[in-house]
Amino acid sequence: MTGRWVIISSDRSKRPSDFSRESVVLKGSHFCPFCPGNESKTPPEIMAYRPGENGRRDLPGWNLRVVPNKFPALGIEGDLDRQADGMFDKMNGIGAHEVVIETPNHAETLANMPVKRVEDVLWAFRDRILDLKQDRRFKYIMVFKNYGDAAGASLEHPHSQLIALPILPKQVVEELEGAKRYFANKERCIFCDIIGQEISARVRIAAENPDFITICPYAPRFPFETWILPKRHESAFENSPSHFYENLARMLQTVLAKAVQVLDNPAYNLVLHTSPIQENTNEYYHWHVEIIPKLTKTAGFEWGTGFYINPTPPEEAAKFLREATVTELQPVGS
Amino acid sequence: MTGRWVIISSDRSKRPSDFSRESVVLKGSHFCPFCPGNESKTPPEIMAYRPGENGRRDLPGWNLRVVPNKFPALGIEGDLDRQADGMFDKMNGIGAHEVVIETPNHAETLANMPVKRVEDVLWAFRDRILDLKQDRRFKYIMVFKNYGDAAGASLEHPHSQLIALPILPKQVVEELEGAKRYFANKERCIFCDIIGQEISARVRIAAENPDFITICPYAPRFPFETWILPKRHESAFENSPSHFYENLARMLQTVLAKAVQVLDNPAYNLVLHTSPIQENTNEYYHWHVEIIPKLTKTAGFEWGTGFYINPTPPEEAAKFLREATVTELQPVGS
Repeated sequence: MTGRWVIISSDRSKRPSDFSRESVVLKGSHFCPFCPGNESKTPPEIMAYRPGENGRRDLPGWNLRVVPNKFPALGIEGDLDRQADGMFDKMNGIGAHEVVIETPNHAETLANMPVKRVEDVLWAFRDRILDLKQDRRFKYIMVFKNYGDAAGASLEHPHSQLIALPILPKQVVEELEGAKRYFANKERCIFCDIIGQEISARVRIAAENPDFITICPYAPRFPFETWILPKRHESAFENSPSHFYENLARMLQTVLAKAVQVLDNPAYNLVLHTSPIQENTNEYYHWHVEIIPKLTKTAGFEWGTGFYINPTPPEEAAKFLREATVTELQPVGS
Repeated sequence: MTGRWVIISSDRSKRPSDFSRESVVLKGSHFCPFCPGNESKTPPEIMAYRPGENGRRDLPGWNLRVVPNKFPALGIEGDLDRQADGMFDKMNGIGAHEVVIETPNHAETLANMPVKRVEDVLWAFRDRILDLKQDRRFKYIMVFKNYGDAAGASLEHPHSQLIALPILPKQVVEELEGAKRYFANKERCIFCDIIGQEISARVRIAAENPDFITICPYAPRFPFETWILPKRHESAFENSPSHFYENLARMLQTVLAKAVQVLDNPAYNLVLHTSPIQENTNEYYHWHVEIIPKLTKTAGFEWGTGFYINPTPPEEAAKFLREATVTELQPVGS
């Protein structure tokens, strides 16, 4: 899709215990602005899920809360005012930067919280995407999660983030263009074809349920990189039928619990890859979730080349994850 | 050139002391395979610089030594044997992976060793590039250095690396294509134009000598990212006139000494960007060195979008570096 090569070092293949990563350890000591009772320490909430009808804004009692990022990367007010600066271009940093506080419980994680909460997090992503899409200044909504200090999380309390962007990011454009090129040749979605090949090959599947398949992709940049894809073609996350959210919650929790077991609670980045706002129903792009555990350091070679040396073949990573026994969550609709 | 946008957060601009980075601290305790006397612990040397005529291979007395990487990312023997694997492609990992041991002194750094040694390191890069270019299987030679654990260095003894690659890496292709597009429009080298604009603007220059200019680029991915460019157009590092190596050594040492002072001996990645082997004399590409201090963590947003949130405007980074007083090395030929 993107023409990227990776170097898989099969000689010096690294097993899970060979990585010198830091496991995520809960410190939990000092003041947390995301814990119930501290609602006034965040900007006023944009949205919350509360049981029953009797909750009040910015007061405890919520199950999930969405607030503006207190230190946003992009600001919501103003115009882009794009202009030349000599041979360069600049514009104002217009966008939205929101935080999804996933649970009131500081010590829970997506891997061990009640699965209904994970599902709520996915519904919150959907609700926020549908709302932000109405702002015509935005071209793309990026949903992601940094778990653990090594993955760039600055707060410990379980949370994810949304950033609405006024441009299509370079890497999204690259993936889209690759997928369009493939579609122009084959009249099939490249991800649907990947899923087909992985289901026949069977060696890179880490987990599966009726709606989703989790694979370690053929040419992964990072050891134990995993992708969760809906088996049926769907171009945009927010257009998915409701059983997708239920089964994605189950799949996500299973995969993260497996990663905790195999990799000793690694820090990770999770990124939702979905279609741009203006082309959200299409035949060529297939939304999915990419999870990158932080096991190695990106060094000069990677920065210089954009290509990656991966010490764990995806077939081995998939086997470790597949064989990790975690409490399997019953999928719905099976 | 590449169409990349970065977000510069000018509100919450970070000064050097705001970064929670780890300074590189010399441990120096255990056995070092790169120290003199341990030559037998590396593969036999490919090349060495020794004073006088009386040195012997793989014995102490060298000033600089180039050896094959003991755990190479790519192997030198064999054929590529590129083939389809369903819809994917694979080939054997053919290439060369060499280590330049920059000095016999374990505790020196490029920032504080005698400048003649730094120059020797550059000559060694040139000598190895000229030799590796003769192997027709290779398309690109990547020279880089990881300094400090946080930047991915696994050994402490001062060293850099060369990797000869059988393909043009994705990011190199992107830069080249961008530069070619610009040349097609303007009939000028994009880097020459950048240098022109930076010399007029004066706000992003960190250092300068007769042959080289160091800038904090207009849209840097990382705080305190710096580029060292020859002022005169030159497409390939290895074709440069000899005073370039002398003045690059001086410039490199100055810039690294400034970084040590401003950023408290940060870990960094250094990458040489140069033309591919098959097109090493051209009008559109301009070799340069990029230095990325490791001050922030790359998180989900960056992995998902390929675009970067940089908390330090390049104008501020350049000012800090420009104003850092280090022993200025006298340039040659001025």
